[in-house]
Amino acid sequence: MHTTLNKVPQVISSQELLEHWQGHRALTRRTIEAFPEEAFFNHTIGGMRTFAEMVMELLGIAGPGIKEIATGNTAPLNEHLEHGNKKEVLLELWDKATEEINTFWPQIKEEQFQKKIKIFGQYEGTVISSIFYFIDNEIHHRGQGYVYLRSLGIEPPAFYER
Amino acid sequence: MHTTLNKVPQVISSQELLEHWQGHRALTRRTIEAFPEEAFFNHTIGGMRTFAEMVMELLGIAGPGIKEIATGNTAPLNEHLEHGNKKEVLLELWDKATEEINTFWPQIKEEQFQKKIKIFGQYEGTVISSIFYFIDNEIHHRGQGYVYLRSLGIEPPAFYER
Repeated sequence: MHTTLNKVPQVISSQELLEHWQGHRALTRRTIEAFPEEAFFNHTIGGMRTFAEMVMELLGIAGPGIKEIATGNTAPLNEHLEHGNKKEVLLELWDKATEEINTFWPQIKEEQFQKKIKIFGQYEGTVISSIFYFIDNEIHHRGQGYVYLRSLGIEPPAFYER
Repeated sequence: MHTTLNKVPQVISSQELLEHWQGHRALTRRTIEAFPEEAFFNHTIGGMRTFAEMVMELLGIAGPGIKEIATGNTAPLNEHLEHGNKKEVLLELWDKATEEINTFWPQIKEEQFQKKIKIFGQYEGTVISSIFYFIDNEIHHRGQGYVYLRSLGIEPPAFYER
């Protein structure tokens, strides 16, 4: 019976989805690294947020979001982090989030992905729709970071490398 | 037996992934609509492509990519389309691609998503990694389109609305 169950094809497994996201997160880390420190905290186009502010949003979502899904303990979204205008501080928080995601992700059961939740006590969806939002929102803002880099005359990291 | 198989939890089903992507594609369509025609074909930042050129890449990938996965018939990637500098022409092609994806997607069997392929006769991966590339690449370039719009003083469509 278990053999049969294991043979049922998955469009994507939980482990593959984790690796897919961590591949994206590694690319976002390289995008942060590509920014000169001053531009990371100050450069904007068209009244948008700086890339540092977008990165803090991503940090507020990723680790805490997966921890909340895994444990069921809700906490409000926090997008403001102490960084002292040092990229190094946010890169360290990025690496901590990588570990946090790897720690809590395996605690999410496969049957949980279709469950309804209210992430950060605020946004209704399923576990899978919330996780897709985390990933898609990161890709969206990183794409904007690429334009910031190009406008500074800097070549962004290759999009297809993960 | 079939009842048991149907109860095996999927992280995401094929149908849900289709709806997820078509939600993104509807948002990209609204992003195209938000551009003034002249800026759509001419506005750039930092030596990047125009949003029209990015959209043609997306059109070259989406419909043909899903058709290739469903049928197994390979064709080279074509990112150059006749448009006569009319947004309307590319919006019509966008809608045709929407139909093409909806037509061919159900022909992709669930056990096929983990299969190795060489999409457009060129890019090696699995069916699911290729489809994620199609979706992620669209989100990436649409995010860049958002910066173009903001730099023109135009508010892009809400990212969270699909």
